[in-house]
Amino acid sequence: MRPHDVVTMGRVGVDLYPTRSGVGLEDVETFTKSVGGSATNVAIAAAVHGRRAGVITRVGDDPFGRFIARELGRFGVDVSQVAALPGEQTPLTFCEIYPPDDFPLYFYRRPKAPDLQIEPHELDAKVIRDARIFWATVTGLSAEPSRSAHHAAWDARGRAPLTVLDLDYRAMFWSSRAEASQAVAQALPNVTVAIGNAEECEVAVGETDPYRAADALLARGVQLAVVKRGPLGVLGRTAEETVEVPAHPVDVVNGLGAGDGFGGALCHALLEGWSLQRSLRFANAAGAIVAGRRECSTAMPSTAEVEAIMSGGSHE
Amino acid sequence: MRPHDVVTMGRVGVDLYPTRSGVGLEDVETFTKSVGGSATNVAIAAAVHGRRAGVITRVGDDPFGRFIARELGRFGVDVSQVAALPGEQTPLTFCEIYPPDDFPLYFYRRPKAPDLQIEPHELDAKVIRDARIFWATVTGLSAEPSRSAHHAAWDARGRAPLTVLDLDYRAMFWSSRAEASQAVAQALPNVTVAIGNAEECEVAVGETDPYRAADALLARGVQLAVVKRGPLGVLGRTAEETVEVPAHPVDVVNGLGAGDGFGGALCHALLEGWSLQRSLRFANAAGAIVAGRRECSTAMPSTAEVEAIMSGGSHE
Repeated sequence: MRPHDVVTMGRVGVDLYPTRSGVGLEDVETFTKSVGGSATNVAIAAAVHGRRAGVITRVGDDPFGRFIARELGRFGVDVSQVAALPGEQTPLTFCEIYPPDDFPLYFYRRPKAPDLQIEPHELDAKVIRDARIFWATVTGLSAEPSRSAHHAAWDARGRAPLTVLDLDYRAMFWSSRAEASQAVAQALPNVTVAIGNAEECEVAVGETDPYRAADALLARGVQLAVVKRGPLGVLGRTAEETVEVPAHPVDVVNGLGAGDGFGGALCHALLEGWSLQRSLRFANAAGAIVAGRRECSTAMPSTAEVEAIMSGGSHE
Repeated sequence: MRPHDVVTMGRVGVDLYPTRSGVGLEDVETFTKSVGGSATNVAIAAAVHGRRAGVITRVGDDPFGRFIARELGRFGVDVSQVAALPGEQTPLTFCEIYPPDDFPLYFYRRPKAPDLQIEPHELDAKVIRDARIFWATVTGLSAEPSRSAHHAAWDARGRAPLTVLDLDYRAMFWSSRAEASQAVAQALPNVTVAIGNAEECEVAVGETDPYRAADALLARGVQLAVVKRGPLGVLGRTAEETVEVPAHPVDVVNGLGAGDGFGGALCHALLEGWSLQRSLRFANAAGAIVAGRRECSTAMPSTAEVEAIMSGGSHE
């Protein structure tokens, strides 16, 4: 079997998103369903760029779990590492949509989501080792046995190039911020790329200033640090260079999933071997397209769509 | 404060029902939200008949919990005994709609729904004692502290007339059928009316034959046993009389909630002091109206609607 371009590991669920914006869940009458979860969305975004992508995750043994497997197949994402856990329920995510910048999430993942029940011995080390990019998220470290499984995956990976940690931090998944900081500190020596926003960098390395945060991430051993600064654009830093690209202008409809669109596009760009400058511009534009659309997984743009808006075209 | 006509105690949640029938959740794209939960639906149904109704239950500390409180208020149901539990999530219920007789339910109530966390000491004994009807369900016995709270409520009630137990049995809420049977056996001596279908009667008293089931319930001390027989109608039996009424003909759209519509209407009929024959005919017709509509809580008919179809009119 040909190795994957991108293998992600982590969260999956069904997104139930309101058909109305600007109101609380109290007032939403209708919800539409789609596949969600950050690690899963990144795999989908990479697949939409034509990349051979797979996701390592777990769903419930229920109709929503079957829906996820089917949808991933429709997107061309390999589901050979997706299993349904007997007796478990597929998690749900509701959101409220208050553009431009407030998108509260309500997770139904109790007592422990299937995607946090991945056991180390269940992993296919060859799939993880051979993937050109291996992408994991901090949320995957928030509970055992998933945390141990992530470390087992990194052991298999052996710090190969393009071992990415998305610093993805959501307070509700942790008993304390300090617990998350400690988990990230244990994870960083195993990865070569780290990506996060200001708050996530603070959890990871105690710095919110983007330059200091990037330096701190490099000091922990990563080769590429990417700091997402929202309306201020994005900063990429390696030992050799520092690149800053401005935010791509967008009328935000729903900011959720924009970071995953950014991530999947960055995977594509890195695999293409583009310069850091071009890679970050491409990823930024992809994220802007997703932010301009209501949905997440079904909003991931093709390479042509991203290139069209980079050359000044409209993105709708 | 004027006593309630009907006080119910038990399950509440948000129903997320598909806008399409005849397909699995995999294929449903859109869901609509409404208040649900059997005990809550019975209170709503009674309120729609003009009865002063209240429900004793608990919701999550979230937008869905606020929605429930607001909707109950809109229906005229007293929410003074409804509290939001900090840190808890309001449960969700999905269904699939395969008319005429298959309506699978998918509950998000883990690890323990707020409505099963009612503590005995939190009850207002006066409200329970003074209510003309006190209605509880077997589901409320499926976990502690709710089970103890139900027994505390029955202690306050002192086996006053119209202390109703809905034999409502859903296998997923119990570790075994035997555990449910034992809980019902402990409950029956405390109530004066028991209502259930054939399977529920089997769990309660080990009988599926409607006449033997009714007799067994009477032998356990209830004064009125009501056995719902689906297309075969309903049987009511007391020490003095046996009444059988045929099913009200209906093109079933969604059978869920029909039993609660039946229950709320039966409460109204019993409070009116109607004969058992007239009461069961009225409740049957109300249930048929709900079965002919897609939703549950928002489908409960008014007294005039029920009387219209009893006199031969259409119910839509």
